[in-house]
Amino acid sequence: MKIALAQLNYHIGNFEYNTNKIIQTLEDQKSKGTDLVVFAELSISGYPPRDFLEYPDFIDLCKKAALDIAAHCKDIACIVGLPEINPSTQGKDLYNAAYFIADGEIKQVIRKTLLPTYDVFDEYRYFEPAAEFKCVDYKGHKIAVTICEDLWNFGDNPLYTKCPMDELIKEEPDFMINIAASPFDYHHDDQRIIVLSQNCHKYQIPLFYVNHVGAQTELIFDGGSLVFDKAGDIVSELKYFEEDVQVFDVEQVQSSIVLGAKSERRNNTEQVYQALLLGIKDYFNKSGFKKATLGLSGGIDSAVVCALACEALGAENVMAVLMPSKYSSDHSIKDAVDLAEKIGCKHTIVPIEKIADAFDETLENEFRDVALDLTEENIQARSRGVILMAMSNKFGYILLNTSNKSECAVGYGTLYGDMCGAISVLGDCYKTQVYQLAEHINRNGEIIPVNTIVKPPSAELRPDQKDSDSLPDYDILDKVLFEYIELKKSANAIIALGYDGDLVKKILNMVNKAEFKRYQTPPILRVSPKAFGMGRRMPIVSKYLF
Amino acid sequence: MKIALAQLNYHIGNFEYNTNKIIQTLEDQKSKGTDLVVFAELSISGYPPRDFLEYPDFIDLCKKAALDIAAHCKDIACIVGLPEINPSTQGKDLYNAAYFIADGEIKQVIRKTLLPTYDVFDEYRYFEPAAEFKCVDYKGHKIAVTICEDLWNFGDNPLYTKCPMDELIKEEPDFMINIAASPFDYHHDDQRIIVLSQNCHKYQIPLFYVNHVGAQTELIFDGGSLVFDKAGDIVSELKYFEEDVQVFDVEQVQSSIVLGAKSERRNNTEQVYQALLLGIKDYFNKSGFKKATLGLSGGIDSAVVCALACEALGAENVMAVLMPSKYSSDHSIKDAVDLAEKIGCKHTIVPIEKIADAFDETLENEFRDVALDLTEENIQARSRGVILMAMSNKFGYILLNTSNKSECAVGYGTLYGDMCGAISVLGDCYKTQVYQLAEHINRNGEIIPVNTIVKPPSAELRPDQKDSDSLPDYDILDKVLFEYIELKKSANAIIALGYDGDLVKKILNMVNKAEFKRYQTPPILRVSPKAFGMGRRMPIVSKYLF
Repeated sequence: MKIALAQLNYHIGNFEYNTNKIIQTLEDQKSKGTDLVVFAELSISGYPPRDFLEYPDFIDLCKKAALDIAAHCKDIACIVGLPEINPSTQGKDLYNAAYFIADGEIKQVIRKTLLPTYDVFDEYRYFEPAAEFKCVDYKGHKIAVTICEDLWNFGDNPLYTKCPMDELIKEEPDFMINIAASPFDYHHDDQRIIVLSQNCHKYQIPLFYVNHVGAQTELIFDGGSLVFDKAGDIVSELKYFEEDVQVFDVEQVQSSIVLGAKSERRNNTEQVYQALLLGIKDYFNKSGFKKATLGLSGGIDSAVVCALACEALGAENVMAVLMPSKYSSDHSIKDAVDLAEKIGCKHTIVPIEKIADAFDETLENEFRDVALDLTEENIQARSRGVILMAMSNKFGYILLNTSNKSECAVGYGTLYGDMCGAISVLGDCYKTQVYQLAEHINRNGEIIPVNTIVKPPSAELRPDQKDSDSLPDYDILDKVLFEYIELKKSANAIIALGYDGDLVKKILNMVNKAEFKRYQTPPILRVSPKAFGMGRRMPIVSKYLF
Repeated sequence: MKIALAQLNYHIGNFEYNTNKIIQTLEDQKSKGTDLVVFAELSISGYPPRDFLEYPDFIDLCKKAALDIAAHCKDIACIVGLPEINPSTQGKDLYNAAYFIADGEIKQVIRKTLLPTYDVFDEYRYFEPAAEFKCVDYKGHKIAVTICEDLWNFGDNPLYTKCPMDELIKEEPDFMINIAASPFDYHHDDQRIIVLSQNCHKYQIPLFYVNHVGAQTELIFDGGSLVFDKAGDIVSELKYFEEDVQVFDVEQVQSSIVLGAKSERRNNTEQVYQALLLGIKDYFNKSGFKKATLGLSGGIDSAVVCALACEALGAENVMAVLMPSKYSSDHSIKDAVDLAEKIGCKHTIVPIEKIADAFDETLENEFRDVALDLTEENIQARSRGVILMAMSNKFGYILLNTSNKSECAVGYGTLYGDMCGAISVLGDCYKTQVYQLAEHINRNGEIIPVNTIVKPPSAELRPDQKDSDSLPDYDILDKVLFEYIELKKSANAIIALGYDGDLVKKILNMVNKAEFKRYQTPPILRVSPKAFGMGRRMPIVSKYLF
């Protein structure tokens, strides 16, 4: 029996697009004599459909698409994911399901048992967990079909009390198929391989695993679908960060014949780089946009975003806007111009001095007798925000936000100023990771000016300002932030690692106090196991720690 | 036996404050000879603690607070809510629990079974559902203690497959206690009474029900704790929108003696008005702020927000900023000044013309040969945003957002302009509801100028602009929005109600396309069953409907 794994890039709610893509793949595979094509979890709707799932009309459209797909399943079978109405009146109204389709008919419904409801996942918000388990019989094979999280209940502290494969294995299936929607983070490809391999090892049968590829706003799916033999060894690994359809002979997999090159493991920075490119590309493609703009300051963050945008969208589609103030250093403007010229994007210089002066004059009466403070710095940052949004409104450029995760974490940024944008490219990369990305971008020669990389970071909102005036060195700051945000350690536990007590408390307080700013920031391309945004939900008006 | 229901206003993560409040209440009740004091769900941490629950340190602090409380439970018992570590290695790491404390000791742990995971609720994100059920025995009474949602599994289409009271009733308890965190919406008080009454009716025993009161950013808890006799009739109803502690004699409740006046039911507008006042008040109190600012345009939305803020915070703490442009009509400025003078808040006039001119001049090179369009309107709105934030930065005023729900829904607002603010006061009130609030505010005499109420709404961003140039009449718009947002109907179902087909499709498309704007808006005080924000989670890059 020949099984195709179809690792495709879907678009949430775009039924015509998703259905056509699935049908086209079925037709291609039919001509190649494939027996069964496996598509990913909720492939018909795209993942995650979120509260569209609460619209009965949306669910109807999923079912209708499945029937269209079924009509093409003559002489070929498929497994395709979609939300299914719960036939019982008790429990949630939907299941996260898959149809096994053959002979033009829906032959069997597979339902998901373990519903991830943590971090970016909200599945129990919509779905009832499955309570019944049955293998799929097809062409003389018994197949244990599960959906994503259903295979993720391992370790000393499993998140669920049930294990659907423990039920399915009783039927003595020949192999497993798992359809997934497993988003990227820089550790997740390795974790995925370990967990899936453990399943093969435990149940002693091969596994065919299909993931999504492509970005859905903040979530980036990296593909990397896999085939394991019954010992848990990889016999094939599909491409990362691009669509890929591969056909496998089940008998060969059962014989542990290595069928495709195992991908070379990329380091974290290379993976993050690829993920961000895909994140930018799909945000624009799926929104119907082509052109981006950003503020180019001469600093490292905007330089990296500019380079990423030019690579993702083509330099001809990127407009870099330089907005010097009276506090901007000459080298900043030069560094920014150097980058734009080297990379070949459009750029323009819009000095903000007149605007800042107009604000000063207009507010003169109000601010008389009050000292200069952060207010005036914020006015500059916000004036730049207004200019960038004006460029966006006038010419249809989409504004890329250039804040990094360290800034987002401690609130070192101006709301409605440098925190503007349709999508945040680096909001999940700490400052030290931004430097690593810059080095990676320069791997074949200088694109980002060396001066941008080596000079001390500065917001340039007052004379001779440096980030280090307000913040600890990024080397220390980023490590403390990682302990608190990613590892969820307490102040005391972090201090016990050897960091200065006052510093740690100051940093953690800054993080908690900046919650109100993060609430209003653009969606952030997620590349870490704990990104700001939908995966980290904090109260705003609260008192914990400060 | 005498039971006190303690309906209190907690502060998330403020362990010192919450614990002191609980202990103070215990000491007060001890002196009155009360036997048992019942506090609300997760009263120790405040509700909802959200992802603070993922911090082991936070859980430790809850336990520590419970031990402090226990030390005060000599000669008095209490039931108090807190997160509890799941002693099993399987399943989620926590339970949503309550301690029954007597004789200075934790005598029994009660765990929540039904975990609301819909709308604004995320409980399965954190908690394992209870699997074991046992009544509390105290002073010769057998008490069925449950937590909030545990009593909410009624109707033809129950959300859960289990019913914890069906287990507890087997022990033949004398009465029920339910500790809750049930947020306000303008329908919820009536729903609550119906569902709780159904429980009494089904199990034929009385019920003591304690709710939270107070606002936690967007969620407003309205109190209204209740006592029902075994027939499901209300024997007492605690206050709405304020703290209240009442003591009841169990034997009297068992004899269906009506013990307190049933509250007079208020109409929706009165309830929303009270809820918004509490929402504003607690946002400021719990954040440690006193003073608010807002842009006062002469229009209805900012007038209502101004009146609410003055009532909630004191007129002396409110600074209204009038920011006329060359398109502002004389009557707008007059209406705004009239309101400020009548209501007694501070006001100042900051004309934006110079600033708008400075943007025009600065962008002249960029925008040469391109026609005027929305860009210039947005520049005005954003210039106002910068001014308001400057007033906020300079003087510590907190900016109140004045957008209404109709605007938020269709995206009729400028991101980083009139969509700025720390908290959105009217973002869950449709325009037609804003008019009702204005009438209510004027119930004892004109506060909001009649002219503000009767004139056609306009953003005044270009000559003679009216909202009706871009939007359908609010009477129709709001009804269509309600069908789509609150009732989740499809375009076809709404058209079938008699609305124009093209109009309905246009409106629904506007709603879906504005998702990117709503992502970046301030938290919205929730007063309806379906508010924008944490309770409505939509994909941004998607294609459904448009």
